[in-house]
Amino acid sequence: MTKIITAPLSGMRDFLPQDVRRRRYVIDIVEQVYSSYGFEPLETPVMERLETLLGKYGEEGDQLIFRVLKRGAKLEQVLGGRPGENDLADAGLRYDLTVPLARVVAEYRAQLPRVFKRYQIQPVFRADRPAKGRFREFCQCDVDVVGIRSVSAECEILSAGAEVLCKLGFEPGEDFVIRLNHRRLLRSLAKHAGIPPFQEEAALVAVDKLDKIGVEGVAEELHSRGIPQEASDRLLEWLRSTPDVPAEVHAGLEEILGGSADGETALAELARILKLAAAGPAGPALRLDPWLARGLSYYTGPIFEVEIRGFAGSAGGGGRYDDLVGMFCGEQIPACGFSLGLERLLLILEERNLFPSGLEDGPQVLVTLFSDELALDSFRLAQDLRRQGFRVDVFPEPGRYGKQFRYAEQRRIRIAALLGPEEKARGTVILRDLARREQEEVSAAGVGDWLRSRLTGDLES
Amino acid sequence: MTKIITAPLSGMRDFLPQDVRRRRYVIDIVEQVYSSYGFEPLETPVMERLETLLGKYGEEGDQLIFRVLKRGAKLEQVLGGRPGENDLADAGLRYDLTVPLARVVAEYRAQLPRVFKRYQIQPVFRADRPAKGRFREFCQCDVDVVGIRSVSAECEILSAGAEVLCKLGFEPGEDFVIRLNHRRLLRSLAKHAGIPPFQEEAALVAVDKLDKIGVEGVAEELHSRGIPQEASDRLLEWLRSTPDVPAEVHAGLEEILGGSADGETALAELARILKLAAAGPAGPALRLDPWLARGLSYYTGPIFEVEIRGFAGSAGGGGRYDDLVGMFCGEQIPACGFSLGLERLLLILEERNLFPSGLEDGPQVLVTLFSDELALDSFRLAQDLRRQGFRVDVFPEPGRYGKQFRYAEQRRIRIAALLGPEEKARGTVILRDLARREQEEVSAAGVGDWLRSRLTGDLES
Repeated sequence: MTKIITAPLSGMRDFLPQDVRRRRYVIDIVEQVYSSYGFEPLETPVMERLETLLGKYGEEGDQLIFRVLKRGAKLEQVLGGRPGENDLADAGLRYDLTVPLARVVAEYRAQLPRVFKRYQIQPVFRADRPAKGRFREFCQCDVDVVGIRSVSAECEILSAGAEVLCKLGFEPGEDFVIRLNHRRLLRSLAKHAGIPPFQEEAALVAVDKLDKIGVEGVAEELHSRGIPQEASDRLLEWLRSTPDVPAEVHAGLEEILGGSADGETALAELARILKLAAAGPAGPALRLDPWLARGLSYYTGPIFEVEIRGFAGSAGGGGRYDDLVGMFCGEQIPACGFSLGLERLLLILEERNLFPSGLEDGPQVLVTLFSDELALDSFRLAQDLRRQGFRVDVFPEPGRYGKQFRYAEQRRIRIAALLGPEEKARGTVILRDLARREQEEVSAAGVGDWLRSRLTGDLES
Repeated sequence: MTKIITAPLSGMRDFLPQDVRRRRYVIDIVEQVYSSYGFEPLETPVMERLETLLGKYGEEGDQLIFRVLKRGAKLEQVLGGRPGENDLADAGLRYDLTVPLARVVAEYRAQLPRVFKRYQIQPVFRADRPAKGRFREFCQCDVDVVGIRSVSAECEILSAGAEVLCKLGFEPGEDFVIRLNHRRLLRSLAKHAGIPPFQEEAALVAVDKLDKIGVEGVAEELHSRGIPQEASDRLLEWLRSTPDVPAEVHAGLEEILGGSADGETALAELARILKLAAAGPAGPALRLDPWLARGLSYYTGPIFEVEIRGFAGSAGGGGRYDDLVGMFCGEQIPACGFSLGLERLLLILEERNLFPSGLEDGPQVLVTLFSDELALDSFRLAQDLRRQGFRVDVFPEPGRYGKQFRYAEQRRIRIAALLGPEEKARGTVILRDLARREQEEVSAAGVGDWLRSRLTGDLES
């Protein structure tokens, strides 16, 4: 027999029971917090039309889309010519949750409320090179407000996102910060520095790397992208002189941008976000950072990114994208959103031991099987305990108790319930605590109470 | 601007908030029941190696797999030749949850307990022609026991599946039945009827259609598949004479099959399932049906199918497949499983109005916004109520109350909290029940209590 590969595809993962439980622990918190902020759930298909996806994520993004092959006659037809990859495929796998949201808003406008607050927690797919913490299928937790032009939307989203992090055990301002900027502020800065409009995007891409490559790295990057030396120097001077004290950042920017309408509007919006978000958990975490750029090209207003202290890379981010929905319905519909990176959060929680104990939801009781004749009695006992709310497994075949206990220990089941002919005759069950190696004979009617006291006592200790 | 198609792809669906809630209602019950039976959660990737999927679902199944296009150099290489669809693709979308389970068991044998009881609730993908109730992406709820040869496994699975249906409001034996058969019984019947071994599969496929095409239809089908007339006649005679009274079915079969070791073993296993399952909720629903065949070729032992009264087609089914895991690890590992069709269950619950009221988990309170100056106060009130466990939305911009109330009504928010300059001065909030058009001024500290009494009183009524 040839060796069959059973590992998941490169960049994909199987989640065994303990993995699933940890993922659910986080997802449950995300859902609970997001719905307390008035967001409602949405789910969209894994597959989207290829034309829905193409052109939304930049040139590099287009290359990272998993394409689904055409089928039947349509495939044969293109195979007759000299097909390229977009001729061969008619669908692609979801790349993020924002483009599907924009499509959904365009499609169901009549049914949706004018302001649509939704959250969506589903896997997305990118044909990227897998690396530590970078997968080809990974889960995003998105929360978006569609239909609101005011920065109230940003405040709600930032508060909800920060609250999730707090509930997971991170202290705002201590364990995590949220860097905040505004696309129009960045563009004003570029303009004031004298960067020609057609080079603006290139300059911002360079500035976006500040964290990774430092000021000198950015200088080289600007040079290699052909940004005029004088403009580049001015930008770098501002970069170097950005004050460390958050309160002073704003004043410094006002000085640079005084008189630019775009810059003033952006600064006013940022100030309002900082003021209103102070009412919630994002307050202590927010930091104005005029050099945050964020990669995705669809952002149009405030942008933000979550940084967890001691952890490289962002754990989430988002911003305003007032033009994206319009690409699907021809009418400008404002929107802003925030995405938490579930996979990164899980890595950090694991590293820092922040998962609560007792996530275990495997069976609590193993009902043993004495003989074929007593099988029905064992099944009845199991059913009775399940009806009382216990998670119960039944040993599949009659066999020595030692073997049955080992099975229970392997599955981390704490209690074994023994029901042999003598117990049956006496109307009792023997309950054995496998951890303590103690056992007690209890009347059949008292089994539930015994278990409740033993299993709850445990939770308290 | 060209018209952009925003509907989901053919056979795919968007789930708006109310749809998601109904799906979760069912999924929560499934998870709760399955874990009470000692099953643990598993999740696998959407994409699998193409060779993992091919050859597992029969020829037709192979055609229904969505193939994912190769990328980069590998794609260019095949495009140079005369590629077929399997040359162009290197991955495919999950077709069911059983093959991924078999792969996972082979891959992680050392980490998994000897007996692995898992449930898995994830979407699967089939490039089938979409029709009413038939989608190209749909959710399966699978529960399987791997590593047990005894029919205890079948009993656990049947009980768990039946209990889910009971919890959803279906009465076993009344609203649903579970047809039960055994692959080896079917094969014995075919052999006793004189059907040559090489035609066995073809004959069983014909018999499987009994429900849809009746005895005469099966007769034609057997004829057109070239089954010898005499064998076909004998099989049809047994078909026609299968007693209506369940208790008599067994005796009738014993008479036909007396002396066939295979047939006797199968009958004994079925009898044991009927006896042990009587301890649980599947008991009143089980019906021995010697003509149930089920399509999938990987079944090797007992098979079963759920039928909901008044609803065509099955709502779930499963069986024993002792050879499938071995296809991935070269060692026979027994397994049996059961899959509930979430989409069909949802259709039936909808048709019969079986969803509980109060599935709504949209926001309960809208905090209004009087003016920009008071925005921070409104945000603070909202945060305070969220901390107390309420689901709260804030109106995004200052505006007339009438407009804000209409927004609340559109989102089906029951209570509006009004906080204007006079209320602020008095330290109060006006709470307005939008359904009853009544309002009351309450001290700021008393808002939570007022809401609790109003919103709970409602749940009780």
